[in-house]
Amino acid sequence: MTERLLVVGGDAAGMSAATAARRREDGLEVLVLERGPYTSYSACGIPYYLGGTVEDSDRLIARSPEEFRSAGIDVRTRCEAVGLDLAARTVTVRDHAARRESSEGFDRLVVATGAEAVAPPVPGADAVEAVRTIDAAERFASRLERESAGAAVVIGASYLGLEMAEALVQRGLDVTLVDQADQVMGTLDADMAHHVQQAAEGVGVKVLLSCEVQEIRVDPRSAGGSVLTSEGELPADEVVLSTGVRPAVAVMAAAGLEVGESGALAVDDHQRCPGHDGVFAAGDCAESRHRLLDRQVNIQLGTHANKQGRIAGVNVTGGDLTFPGVIGTAASKICRYEIARTGLSETEAQMAGIDVVAAGIRDRTRAGYFPGAGPIWVKLVAHARDGRLLGGQIVGVEGAAKRIDVLATAIWAEMNVQELELLDLSYAPPFSGVYDPLLIAARQTAKAVSR
Amino acid sequence: MTERLLVVGGDAAGMSAATAARRREDGLEVLVLERGPYTSYSACGIPYYLGGTVEDSDRLIARSPEEFRSAGIDVRTRCEAVGLDLAARTVTVRDHAARRESSEGFDRLVVATGAEAVAPPVPGADAVEAVRTIDAAERFASRLERESAGAAVVIGASYLGLEMAEALVQRGLDVTLVDQADQVMGTLDADMAHHVQQAAEGVGVKVLLSCEVQEIRVDPRSAGGSVLTSEGELPADEVVLSTGVRPAVAVMAAAGLEVGESGALAVDDHQRCPGHDGVFAAGDCAESRHRLLDRQVNIQLGTHANKQGRIAGVNVTGGDLTFPGVIGTAASKICRYEIARTGLSETEAQMAGIDVVAAGIRDRTRAGYFPGAGPIWVKLVAHARDGRLLGGQIVGVEGAAKRIDVLATAIWAEMNVQELELLDLSYAPPFSGVYDPLLIAARQTAKAVSR
Repeated sequence: MTERLLVVGGDAAGMSAATAARRREDGLEVLVLERGPYTSYSACGIPYYLGGTVEDSDRLIARSPEEFRSAGIDVRTRCEAVGLDLAARTVTVRDHAARRESSEGFDRLVVATGAEAVAPPVPGADAVEAVRTIDAAERFASRLERESAGAAVVIGASYLGLEMAEALVQRGLDVTLVDQADQVMGTLDADMAHHVQQAAEGVGVKVLLSCEVQEIRVDPRSAGGSVLTSEGELPADEVVLSTGVRPAVAVMAAAGLEVGESGALAVDDHQRCPGHDGVFAAGDCAESRHRLLDRQVNIQLGTHANKQGRIAGVNVTGGDLTFPGVIGTAASKICRYEIARTGLSETEAQMAGIDVVAAGIRDRTRAGYFPGAGPIWVKLVAHARDGRLLGGQIVGVEGAAKRIDVLATAIWAEMNVQELELLDLSYAPPFSGVYDPLLIAARQTAKAVSR
Repeated sequence: MTERLLVVGGDAAGMSAATAARRREDGLEVLVLERGPYTSYSACGIPYYLGGTVEDSDRLIARSPEEFRSAGIDVRTRCEAVGLDLAARTVTVRDHAARRESSEGFDRLVVATGAEAVAPPVPGADAVEAVRTIDAAERFASRLERESAGAAVVIGASYLGLEMAEALVQRGLDVTLVDQADQVMGTLDADMAHHVQQAAEGVGVKVLLSCEVQEIRVDPRSAGGSVLTSEGELPADEVVLSTGVRPAVAVMAAAGLEVGESGALAVDDHQRCPGHDGVFAAGDCAESRHRLLDRQVNIQLGTHANKQGRIAGVNVTGGDLTFPGVIGTAASKICRYEIARTGLSETEAQMAGIDVVAAGIRDRTRAGYFPGAGPIWVKLVAHARDGRLLGGQIVGVEGAAKRIDVLATAIWAEMNVQELELLDLSYAPPFSGVYDPLLIAARQTAKAVSR
């Protein structure tokens, strides 16, 4: 009899799993349920679409449901899994288009339900739709075109909040970015985040830190609202929430899948849900092992979702791939600066009780005499005992961010900064001074270790 | 009594050594002899100066002799060491400005004499001045401005030959690049070098491969010469030689310093010349250990020269630093492409008798939908037995080259491609697709390993 693989969620992790499984097992029926109208899109591209850098939302879609269907994957969009019975191996499906519920059986299951926005716990927050999906972004964009919105408030100064703030400035809005923390981008240390804040302010974003939002007074059908904060009332024709996301695991948890301390689904290093044969989870809804902290974390990024999805799809069809864990690498581009981080920040290391040293340097992205050279800041965090590299942060103009991958590789390989300092890295005047900024930073950090 | 450190050669390695020694030992007298008029300049910047990207040759000089002197280093320019007596610890100095010779004693010695151009063994080659120093570049530039040069022939299609060819095109000359090999850039495999050749041809450089130069008929004082080749006579108002360089070690070898198989001075991993207490060598004139080939090589690059110079300066003043060797990392920008390589090419690995697999991929430098995305080619070379990464080559538009440092780090750490494939590298739409091109290349190479 034909076996059926059910994949719940049709974005990065889900479609990676479905594709890998489809390729590996000819006789398998592969059914994907996707709550929204689109599959396999770049959520990371949404700010660029809203800001006008990417003109058409279609361009953010890597592969359409039709393309997947013609590859032999039964994708059902606007179909949400609202119930799960692991013993009976059935799922309750709500078809939002047809407005009906039905039951579907499965033999094997990959859960890739992703994450959902967390609204701040203040009155009025429920009236604001999160701009996390392409269809939500399209609704937001058409509202911006229709109205003569003048002022926007972005709540939450994460990298996404900053990207959205920049996008709305590019749209001509007057943008205020508020956060209750005393710095932007909590994934960076404050000294590095400072440069990002300056860049945002440089394009006209008003940044309000240590600012509590008390009430959101907007009507999605008209302009002229406001946001009440501890710093006063801010006019707000539009409000964007970027106050964090959480794994979308309610249905799966209710059905008995284990939820870890991070709030995401527990999985082993093969993406298996413990205690449930033939059940896997991958992507934003699942945990990953942090290699430096040696504990399970939930980091929502497309890179992990794609890799874990593929591994789940391989392993659910009899394969034996291991997901090796994460070290917290991330990059973004905000205003004139590229920003990247990997490993532990100084603050994170201190919170984890690790005795670290840190050093930061400022350099140029090209040889000093070469046109287009601009600033780059590099901060490294190393174990105080032996100089083992634990983290890196980079802010700078074009060419800065991708250097983080060198640090990620060095951290992965458990290199220390003394070794990094003398690494045979490339040099040419258009790309750096003769000592790459990473080598200079490693040298400064090595000095701090030996003190 | 005050001891004296003599440094022969005032460019990257020599001035790095002098500076480190000066900082570490107060009482030490530091004397530097430099044959040319400048110290510590960027030879790598010369093509950009000739092409007009960098307007003023002064900008290529990191620190002037005056600056070094005010830091307590006695730099004598236009002074060449023409003889050395290691037993008597004296050097014979020819002062080209004063046109006299004298003898100088020393207690400790750092040899940093660099490299010199090798002219091709054909009639007329001696009449062509190599454009390897700033003063030679200034003479060449002023000749270009004075004359109405129309045609140039660049002999040798190394990265330097390609950079010079591009520079001369930017100056408005009609440029032919000839090489006896059947590909440009011998440091790359032919399949990767092909993209570079296309880029050069794209800006109008005429590339003649498998072409023997037979005679050079130019007069440095006038235009209207030519170059006779196996492909016919090429008009040549200007000829540029980039037919390789060799370590400038004649005086030192005659004095008894050991020369290795590479033709450069033998040194241990502390930059010490074996058998001669207190004598060190660093930079283009010295050997380095190649970590993958496990033998001594001579690779002339500013990166090594700076590091080795500093190590020599530290160790000659009682320090204990180890130069960890090289893996052949290099980068350049030629026409629209950035080019980089590290480790062993497929050809080099085969010549070294190592059983390797290789895989190449073509991808985009940014997310497909992001403006400014362009092609990037990545080729990886791995040990056939276990997938250990041995080499990488990258050609592509802006953002391509510096990715080589990730591969250099992975090679250094003895990572295999199976591990590289799942590394936690960064992603954001302006910098790559969700799978970085390096991860895609690693996956393809891993497949080749398992076959």
